[in-house]
Amino acid sequence: MGITKFMTPEIIFGFHSLGQVGESMLRLGAKKIFVVSDPGVVDAAWVEKAIGYLKQSNLDYHLWTNITPNPKDVEIDAGVREYAENGCDAVLGIGGGSAMDAAKAIALLGTNEGTIHQYEGIDRVIHPLPPMVMVPTTAGSGAEVSQFSIIVDSKRKVKMAITSKSLIPDIAIIDPHTLMTKDTRLTANTGMDALTHAIESCISLAATSLTEVHSLEAIRLIAKYLRPSAASRYNRKAKEAMAMASLHAGIAFSNAILGAVHAISHQLGGYLDLPHGEVNAILLPHVLEFNMIAAPEKYRKIAATFGENTSGLSLTDAAFLAVKAVKDLVRDLDIPDSFPDLVLQKKQIDFLSNNAVQDACMVTNPRDMSAKDVNMLLQKVLRCEH
Amino acid sequence: MGITKFMTPEIIFGFHSLGQVGESMLRLGAKKIFVVSDPGVVDAAWVEKAIGYLKQSNLDYHLWTNITPNPKDVEIDAGVREYAENGCDAVLGIGGGSAMDAAKAIALLGTNEGTIHQYEGIDRVIHPLPPMVMVPTTAGSGAEVSQFSIIVDSKRKVKMAITSKSLIPDIAIIDPHTLMTKDTRLTANTGMDALTHAIESCISLAATSLTEVHSLEAIRLIAKYLRPSAASRYNRKAKEAMAMASLHAGIAFSNAILGAVHAISHQLGGYLDLPHGEVNAILLPHVLEFNMIAAPEKYRKIAATFGENTSGLSLTDAAFLAVKAVKDLVRDLDIPDSFPDLVLQKKQIDFLSNNAVQDACMVTNPRDMSAKDVNMLLQKVLRCEH
Repeated sequence: MGITKFMTPEIIFGFHSLGQVGESMLRLGAKKIFVVSDPGVVDAAWVEKAIGYLKQSNLDYHLWTNITPNPKDVEIDAGVREYAENGCDAVLGIGGGSAMDAAKAIALLGTNEGTIHQYEGIDRVIHPLPPMVMVPTTAGSGAEVSQFSIIVDSKRKVKMAITSKSLIPDIAIIDPHTLMTKDTRLTANTGMDALTHAIESCISLAATSLTEVHSLEAIRLIAKYLRPSAASRYNRKAKEAMAMASLHAGIAFSNAILGAVHAISHQLGGYLDLPHGEVNAILLPHVLEFNMIAAPEKYRKIAATFGENTSGLSLTDAAFLAVKAVKDLVRDLDIPDSFPDLVLQKKQIDFLSNNAVQDACMVTNPRDMSAKDVNMLLQKVLRCEH
Repeated sequence: MGITKFMTPEIIFGFHSLGQVGESMLRLGAKKIFVVSDPGVVDAAWVEKAIGYLKQSNLDYHLWTNITPNPKDVEIDAGVREYAENGCDAVLGIGGGSAMDAAKAIALLGTNEGTIHQYEGIDRVIHPLPPMVMVPTTAGSGAEVSQFSIIVDSKRKVKMAITSKSLIPDIAIIDPHTLMTKDTRLTANTGMDALTHAIESCISLAATSLTEVHSLEAIRLIAKYLRPSAASRYNRKAKEAMAMASLHAGIAFSNAILGAVHAISHQLGGYLDLPHGEVNAILLPHVLEFNMIAAPEKYRKIAATFGENTSGLSLTDAAFLAVKAVKDLVRDLDIPDSFPDLVLQKKQIDFLSNNAVQDACMVTNPRDMSAKDVNMLLQKVLRCEH
């Protein structure tokens, strides 16, 4: 093992922890908070609640919600202007991955020159960011603890991955209560996103003892609680467990990075503006089949963590139970195993395949994947028009 | 589960990671570093090496090594004067728990008024501390990641626990290479300290999913690697595993706190200036027997993590295997099960017992422990002179 690094924000977790948002901002020395959210979270009244706590701490704020799922560079540009025009000195992201990724990108440009495109890649940030607090309202993206922000380059139609320790928020406040306003579909899709984080970080070439414990605990919790969480929005125990699972998965993938599912899903998401969680859920079983020969011991461990009975089985048979467990979960959540209505031309699939192998997440995938491999995988999950 | 908090420093881990000490200090904006260490670490040339890296980064420094095991308030006073007189603006602790705890206490008083006694207890720190980097050279204390500093009040002869998130260093650099200059006895004692952290945090009333994964991974690594690490100073794999184990245990106990072993060992260590690791190793099996009825499921999990075969056993029998596994390890490391030469008067034992139940670590012990319980336990491990 070479030199490895591990970093997380300060974490505050539990029902009603949202109440600590004002005090947290005060501790960070914030005066005027730029609140980034999306219309759905506003409708569910979580933003109003958070702003109430900021007011209780005598903090000024400016609310900004002009973002779409898979946030775009042009939205970030507009957000940064509003941040500066309103004299803000701190950022609160409250919502799913889109809101938090947008909040991080705006914070970055709050203290660094130029446009967000200049920061695509690893460690390009120069100046320290303003104080950042993140409140996830899905379980989910893990953006509340991660060193990434994913922003769509609207001209190139690709997702840019901005990677820097500076993007790790100062404080992550995870309140499972916020999950109780989400419907079955969003719960299932975001839960599968968390599972993808957990599994890809577990089999990543950059996984360490520090990250693997978090990957496996996330898998254990998701195997047990994602079905009941998707089944009822009122199941407090399942919501708490899924919030914890998403947190564990976020800690793991922020430090061990991801793999081919995300490398491919970034292309589909950027090009076709598809929902990130569902794309991951559809790709995951296919990529797992492809990757199996690279990490059968890890697969066996994942299968056992899912509760599969691996005793007495050969390594290969035990490993295969990990794929089976994921497929069973996808089926139970009514997620399809392909995109039935997605029709692309051959040259479009070539474009996506060539970009996928350039994605930073491909570097830590345990099995080398060529553009041809991605092409074949894509033709399994969508229809190719010749 | 109520609201829970979790925090770690930025972690850099691996052979030769010591080389990152200068760059780390630069990143934190440090100019003149107050280097705290002890004579043994200086002899092993680790301090010279660290200072070489500071110089490579064009950083100024002042070396201070006037500390003893179980660092005393008077030593801290002297250290703070030297810190100020030399115009330092950052602290590097390099050594075992004593050096790092002293470094943290000096950093605290570098920016906060008064003497260290005023900060005994929880959250009494007012001003942010100067940048702190910690380099542990034992596996060990966990002070490189923890929110504690333990300093002896030399008048009262008690260990003061200073607890604050401010005491969590900015960066922990863990280089397993530094473990290769330690003898069998120090390796065994510090390894048992790490095991005590892992087990006490695992059964702590404040344990959460976030801390338990680290407690159990520490136990797994110690069960497998402490014997070979104590057996040879040249076993690189065992040194790396024990460095990682101590780190996991440190992350766990900093966030889940400890229990009765530490509550009692703080008294024995403060009153009699005994080596912390060995005191913990002697107390641990006795406290584990006392605590068993409070957490049999956790004990069963610990036993399984030790590699004991718990299948088909009753919960109580399986739980007991955790105690047995710890006793086997203590025996294999040639650590006695009591203090054969320690003779105290009854009133001294009463004094220690009464102080132990007031120790902050007692609050998270899973079984209520009275002064009488502590008294009986102490009479098992030392001789009482009537």
